[in-house]
Amino acid sequence: MEDYDVLILGSGAGGYSAAIYASRYNMSAAVIGKEPGGVASEASEVENYPGFKKITGLELMEKFRGHVQSLGSKVFIYSDIVSVKKHGNKFIARLEDGKEFSGKALIVALGSKRRKLEIPGEKEFAGRGVSYCATCDAAFFKDRTVAIIGGNDSAAKAALVLADIAKKVYIIYRKDKIRAEPVLADRIDSKGNIEYVYNAVPLRIQGVKVVKSVVIKQNGKERKIPLDGIFIEIGSTPEDTLTAMLKLEKDVNGYIKVGQDMSTSIPGVFAAGDVTTGSNMFRQLVTAVAEGAIAAESAYRYLSGKTSL
Amino acid sequence: MEDYDVLILGSGAGGYSAAIYASRYNMSAAVIGKEPGGVASEASEVENYPGFKKITGLELMEKFRGHVQSLGSKVFIYSDIVSVKKHGNKFIARLEDGKEFSGKALIVALGSKRRKLEIPGEKEFAGRGVSYCATCDAAFFKDRTVAIIGGNDSAAKAALVLADIAKKVYIIYRKDKIRAEPVLADRIDSKGNIEYVYNAVPLRIQGVKVVKSVVIKQNGKERKIPLDGIFIEIGSTPEDTLTAMLKLEKDVNGYIKVGQDMSTSIPGVFAAGDVTTGSNMFRQLVTAVAEGAIAAESAYRYLSGKTSL
Repeated sequence: MEDYDVLILGSGAGGYSAAIYASRYNMSAAVIGKEPGGVASEASEVENYPGFKKITGLELMEKFRGHVQSLGSKVFIYSDIVSVKKHGNKFIARLEDGKEFSGKALIVALGSKRRKLEIPGEKEFAGRGVSYCATCDAAFFKDRTVAIIGGNDSAAKAALVLADIAKKVYIIYRKDKIRAEPVLADRIDSKGNIEYVYNAVPLRIQGVKVVKSVVIKQNGKERKIPLDGIFIEIGSTPEDTLTAMLKLEKDVNGYIKVGQDMSTSIPGVFAAGDVTTGSNMFRQLVTAVAEGAIAAESAYRYLSGKTSL
Repeated sequence: MEDYDVLILGSGAGGYSAAIYASRYNMSAAVIGKEPGGVASEASEVENYPGFKKITGLELMEKFRGHVQSLGSKVFIYSDIVSVKKHGNKFIARLEDGKEFSGKALIVALGSKRRKLEIPGEKEFAGRGVSYCATCDAAFFKDRTVAIIGGNDSAAKAALVLADIAKKVYIIYRKDKIRAEPVLADRIDSKGNIEYVYNAVPLRIQGVKVVKSVVIKQNGKERKIPLDGIFIEIGSTPEDTLTAMLKLEKDVNGYIKVGQDMSTSIPGVFAAGDVTTGSNMFRQLVTAVAEGAIAAESAYRYLSGKTSL
């Protein structure tokens, strides 16, 4: 068992920021995550983290990780945390190889995971035309035809990335107008090869070994769109397996309820980032970072028995 | 009169971040501030803004400003904003040269100003031995004796900056232990030329043309400490002149009360950064940045008549 002052679950922006602040308070901290950088590292480009005009999510998250490590906190990337529980006055996380870590305080920054369409063909063709990460997989679709499912910022960004690589890009969305940032919508309009397919709901993905088409329902009628790739960008749901083990109080959508100090319903457990109800649920890189900092300060107050500094 | 969608008062971290996000929403925005970078630009070094291991406050704030300008928002640095008022459905800020700017929404990110000791000699010797910015003035005290008044993070940082330049550094604090981040306290201990003067209250600053000594009261007795410079680091108070003109609701300490969406008591007016009660009042660079982003999103919702996106 490795013992730390603060155990940070999640290696995204919130977890890394919490680790940076933990070390400012001389607390030993371990960050345990599934993927380095979390969901932010999948962003094709980040233009709204002040200080960096344009940077890929991967590069920015590598800078965060380097920052964490330079200040002395450890970062462990494991394929899975199988359990987390309170034991006495410690919190213990167990990894799939049996290794255990303990912390006197716990910061949950587990982020969210991509929402699935849950339609026939989605699972079957995952990795064979069906993707959840345009940044990761766009290059496979050079001069091909693809569709983005969704209408949020991530969907718009995926469309823009793919428009520069693919021949033709459809944006299939259930409403009659995408709800992405206007600046992204403008850029989509300026591309010649992106076509909106509005009021449309995907019914099934079809193919032979690889994806060949998607069947949608549009204005009451079924329509088949031939294509080579489908990028599903319909939002995220908060991580819930580990938070259920801890029995943390959540809102109706499964996000961990937090106070202004990022405290949760369990003393000693704080939370930060996309997994929480914090920051007016804006869920940006900058809000995850701020929440991580606040959570670390609150953990410090908790461990030093102070309610205010 | 120059007209904008969003008028941002304050050119610190919160204001710059608000401008970056405003441009993401295609809103025209003007940042009007007194000093480029606000109080953050006075930080000798910033080690807790994720992504930059170590950078001066000035450099980081210049990066922020460049980021703002690259996205199309304008930054105006003026010596003073003399008034701000609501006129019809617009907010109008007037500068001392008579120039006026209007915004359909207003983001107040005016930060805070240094608290003064309010003791004899302080005003008289300001700029002649009395300073409120170690980063700015430390170099004048090479091989001299100085005192820092205060015990917070800023006081500790000022002491560390001065320890590398001055011969001798006193930290004069009213309590029996400084309340700075432990990592800073450790660094102070590792310096050989910093001496704590605890349970001490400064009574008056004395000198002839320039500062010669400070008289303190310690354990009931007066004591005179000969020195060449005094750095006053006893915290900040929120900007209040302009916020009073707007009649914004504040807490007992004068900070603007904000909701989770950074809305204030006046529709169309949002606030961000050190001037607010946001982020559990942690008041860091990262929290100002997050609040600026949230304020800009809320301004966008306000202007587009949406309550949720």
